[in-house]
Amino acid sequence: MRLSQFHLHTEKETPAEAELASHRLMLKSGMVRKLAAGIYTWSPLGLRVLRKVEAIVREEMDAAGAIELLMPSIQPRELWDETGRWQKFGGQLLKLRDRKEAEYAYGPTHEEVITDFARNELASYKQLPVTFYQIQTKFRDEIRPRFGIMRAREFLMKDAYSFDVDDAGLERAYHAMRDAYSRIFTRLGLEFRAVQADSGAIGGDTSQEFHVLADSGEDAIAFSNGSEYAANVETARAADPGPRPAPSEDMRKVETPTQKTCEAVAALMGIPLARTVKSIALVGGDERFTLALVRGDHAVNEIKLAKLDGMAGYRPATEAEIRAHLGSEPGFLGPLHAKQPIRVLADREVAAMADMVVGANEAGFHLAGVNWGRDLPEPDLVADIRNVVDGDRAADGGTLRIVRGIEVGHVFQLGRQYAEAMGCKVLDDSGKAVVPTMGCYGIGVSRIVAAAIEQNFDEAGILWPEAMAPWRVAVCVINPKKDAAVVEAAEALYQELREAGIEVVLDDRGLRPGAMFADMELIGIPHRVVVSPRGLEGGTFEYRARTASEAEHLDHQALMSRLRG
Amino acid sequence: MRLSQFHLHTEKETPAEAELASHRLMLKSGMVRKLAAGIYTWSPLGLRVLRKVEAIVREEMDAAGAIELLMPSIQPRELWDETGRWQKFGGQLLKLRDRKEAEYAYGPTHEEVITDFARNELASYKQLPVTFYQIQTKFRDEIRPRFGIMRAREFLMKDAYSFDVDDAGLERAYHAMRDAYSRIFTRLGLEFRAVQADSGAIGGDTSQEFHVLADSGEDAIAFSNGSEYAANVETARAADPGPRPAPSEDMRKVETPTQKTCEAVAALMGIPLARTVKSIALVGGDERFTLALVRGDHAVNEIKLAKLDGMAGYRPATEAEIRAHLGSEPGFLGPLHAKQPIRVLADREVAAMADMVVGANEAGFHLAGVNWGRDLPEPDLVADIRNVVDGDRAADGGTLRIVRGIEVGHVFQLGRQYAEAMGCKVLDDSGKAVVPTMGCYGIGVSRIVAAAIEQNFDEAGILWPEAMAPWRVAVCVINPKKDAAVVEAAEALYQELREAGIEVVLDDRGLRPGAMFADMELIGIPHRVVVSPRGLEGGTFEYRARTASEAEHLDHQALMSRLRG
Repeated sequence: MRLSQFHLHTEKETPAEAELASHRLMLKSGMVRKLAAGIYTWSPLGLRVLRKVEAIVREEMDAAGAIELLMPSIQPRELWDETGRWQKFGGQLLKLRDRKEAEYAYGPTHEEVITDFARNELASYKQLPVTFYQIQTKFRDEIRPRFGIMRAREFLMKDAYSFDVDDAGLERAYHAMRDAYSRIFTRLGLEFRAVQADSGAIGGDTSQEFHVLADSGEDAIAFSNGSEYAANVETARAADPGPRPAPSEDMRKVETPTQKTCEAVAALMGIPLARTVKSIALVGGDERFTLALVRGDHAVNEIKLAKLDGMAGYRPATEAEIRAHLGSEPGFLGPLHAKQPIRVLADREVAAMADMVVGANEAGFHLAGVNWGRDLPEPDLVADIRNVVDGDRAADGGTLRIVRGIEVGHVFQLGRQYAEAMGCKVLDDSGKAVVPTMGCYGIGVSRIVAAAIEQNFDEAGILWPEAMAPWRVAVCVINPKKDAAVVEAAEALYQELREAGIEVVLDDRGLRPGAMFADMELIGIPHRVVVSPRGLEGGTFEYRARTASEAEHLDHQALMSRLRG
Repeated sequence: MRLSQFHLHTEKETPAEAELASHRLMLKSGMVRKLAAGIYTWSPLGLRVLRKVEAIVREEMDAAGAIELLMPSIQPRELWDETGRWQKFGGQLLKLRDRKEAEYAYGPTHEEVITDFARNELASYKQLPVTFYQIQTKFRDEIRPRFGIMRAREFLMKDAYSFDVDDAGLERAYHAMRDAYSRIFTRLGLEFRAVQADSGAIGGDTSQEFHVLADSGEDAIAFSNGSEYAANVETARAADPGPRPAPSEDMRKVETPTQKTCEAVAALMGIPLARTVKSIALVGGDERFTLALVRGDHAVNEIKLAKLDGMAGYRPATEAEIRAHLGSEPGFLGPLHAKQPIRVLADREVAAMADMVVGANEAGFHLAGVNWGRDLPEPDLVADIRNVVDGDRAADGGTLRIVRGIEVGHVFQLGRQYAEAMGCKVLDDSGKAVVPTMGCYGIGVSRIVAAAIEQNFDEAGILWPEAMAPWRVAVCVINPKKDAAVVEAAEALYQELREAGIEVVLDDRGLRPGAMFADMELIGIPHRVVVSPRGLEGGTFEYRARTASEAEHLDHQALMSRLRG
């Protein structure tokens, strides 16, 4: 492509509204232009990148045996009523009426439509297993669309749906998709993790998220350096704690007149924070007053807590409830000397502690040297109720590290809920009508573009992985209007690269070198070659990798072998 | 592709609701499935065809220098208010509100959005000329969606928009797009015509439609066998008639007691219908009583009529108005002996007649041997007010033929109306801010698929042009589960064709030969090869072109050379 015949329109100013690097750089490089809140036009430059992602996603879906189709964006309400999601989906569902007042939604996802397709198309187990996919524009009416493409309302998504007669088939389809996702993100050149996700009531290894790692990511991810284990911090578990040590101290009362936090108490006593225990007063869904205990250096995980017996729908206890049960004010709470029966819920780590420091249930005092069994009964319930932290021991013996990630993919074993609700059945090999089991598999195609930038940028602009760059190589012509020999040499190199199958853009716009280089760095072209009068004289080209700090002067042969990669 | 790993689902029954062949065959072959009125899912089979059309459109757009981008489907009302089209566009505009009650439309076209993009992106004549295009899903809320994909509400369209500083630039952009369209339809293997369209007030060669020719087409198209001339019958003109012959008969009154039509009068008198004149009583927009005269064998063209001075908004005269002006009842009307002043509007052909037969303005009588100038004054106005008919002489000396067509493309010189309304300006080479002039260029990508079928089908199914076929070659395996040698030979042929770059599908589903062949004919695969035990013995393959009536037995070499085409 000759840039003089393309439409590149970069901005000099940094857009004020953009908080994230990807948002800022996509606007500054002109990849996208905002049309309305959360709705963007992809410029020619941006579309080149988007199409590269789309092509790799499509190739790997095809290679995994998934079959592409194309469902409509506008979906009739009747299908959503069948699954109950017309009501349940919430405000993200963009509802509309046509000229005959029939109700529709702009599809945010296609479980209903694909299940409707399947119940009409699939009659026999012989047609299974089958995985359908599409790459298509979707709409989610976010309350606060922001962060540009990262959380746009109109976006491009790949969604796939598998149908199998039995669970073993679903398991195979699920793994095929998961493996395809790994290949996709590997080919895109992104650092990513496949992460266990909270799969709700279904449990087990039935839902995984794919995260592109980036400091700006919304999600915290724990992964082990000892195995493939990785999980969203929402669900990540550390290894079981070791056995509880024997008591080595007597229980004693410590005066803590103004020390209402574990940190303050530890500082006053000159002990590690990990020796203290935080007591959190809650009322479970079963209305029982509950004291949840985690180590002073740990934080409660609300998702884990809510899954325990009696705790679904729990809430913080009121100050009146706390006084009634513990006879104390917050800041000095603990599991001893309760005024009324309470449930003590200890994190695994707390249950394995000896010589703890806890609140005394008396304003201005804590208790130290507290030991289970000796000073108070064993906890009513022991469970993993904390967030893992960086450095935790993993179950596999490795160490857990915490990184931040951007969710770009999700694979999920749906099971039979949609097929059942919509009456989708096939005959099995014994001639009996059975409900097929489904999986669904999504990739945020447009979101990947933004996530890749979050992971790969510097102060000058984007650092595209080669597979996603709008062009791999930029040939920059110095002074094209004044120097015919330079133009000729640049054209020859441009043609040679094209013929060698190397994707190249010729910057023949005639800009000043500084402006030209700034543009090429901003839009993130991995390899830059400058054709200048001085270089021509010396028989060299100035070559610079986008990630290198210095340019090199290479002769023709060395340049070509470098660019062939 | 192995068909056992694809999802092909043909129907045995002919769908009752389908009136058009394309609708029927797309449902029967399983290319599309209806989700709601005018809203269809493209199955894997249908999508293969759609993508082929899309790819050819994209290649030719790129080759013509147009630059691809991607605009949103959801467009804010504010932009449509700027051009006044929020009100003017009519019921086809699907309007909706988001959760914040902001108003949007699902884009049926993108003039507003591209002009908004341009006013932000284009600042200087140096960025022009430029033509942007996209291939994107659009929605038009048709009152009566029917005919399947032919008039779907949600459809795939290629829309392009050119920007130029001056009219000469627009002319160049327009011709580049028009030529690209010709290449696209040629490459698709379709019989088509580029046709002058009614371009309203703008006039001239500023709007052309591209029609795929098919008997079922909604539009009648006139084309000359003497030149490239082709026009929608709405606007088509025949050659000027020759000079008026001298009178050769005296005027006389003919008794026509029950003959109220030209046909009946001509039959009674034993003369050609072309010797009679039809008188149509109208009231012009200027309220003048008007008698429009066309030859007995011709039909009035309402679009041409409405463009004449005083005739815009014309209506048929009432019987009372007719009696008041002509003193007669309908069936015997004519331009002589009016009771009050009337305007006589003669078609060019009528003005060039001698010895006419017209109504006598007296019940039961006509006048024969009527001549202009001698028996009545020359007409007040002479103009082309009729539809051309098959066999008319064309202005180029050729003969006009009438065929039917399906509109699949439209190129249009928009001019400055959108840019002006939306304040889009660029600096020209003298530094002055000027409003650019625009062209818009549409292709109905999904509609082409249906139009191609309308043009190419037989009683067994679709007859795809090679460029649009889901696969070029089908290799059909007889009894794959019972005969390993046949499977092996078929697999070898399949691989060989793939390696030769020939797109092939292996029908390894194990259906009975009859059912397998019926499927391949229904879905329109251009070349079919049968691998059977008998053929293997004789060292031949059974080959049949989809359009051939008989199969041939070819040896390996002959088969390969045939399939290489």
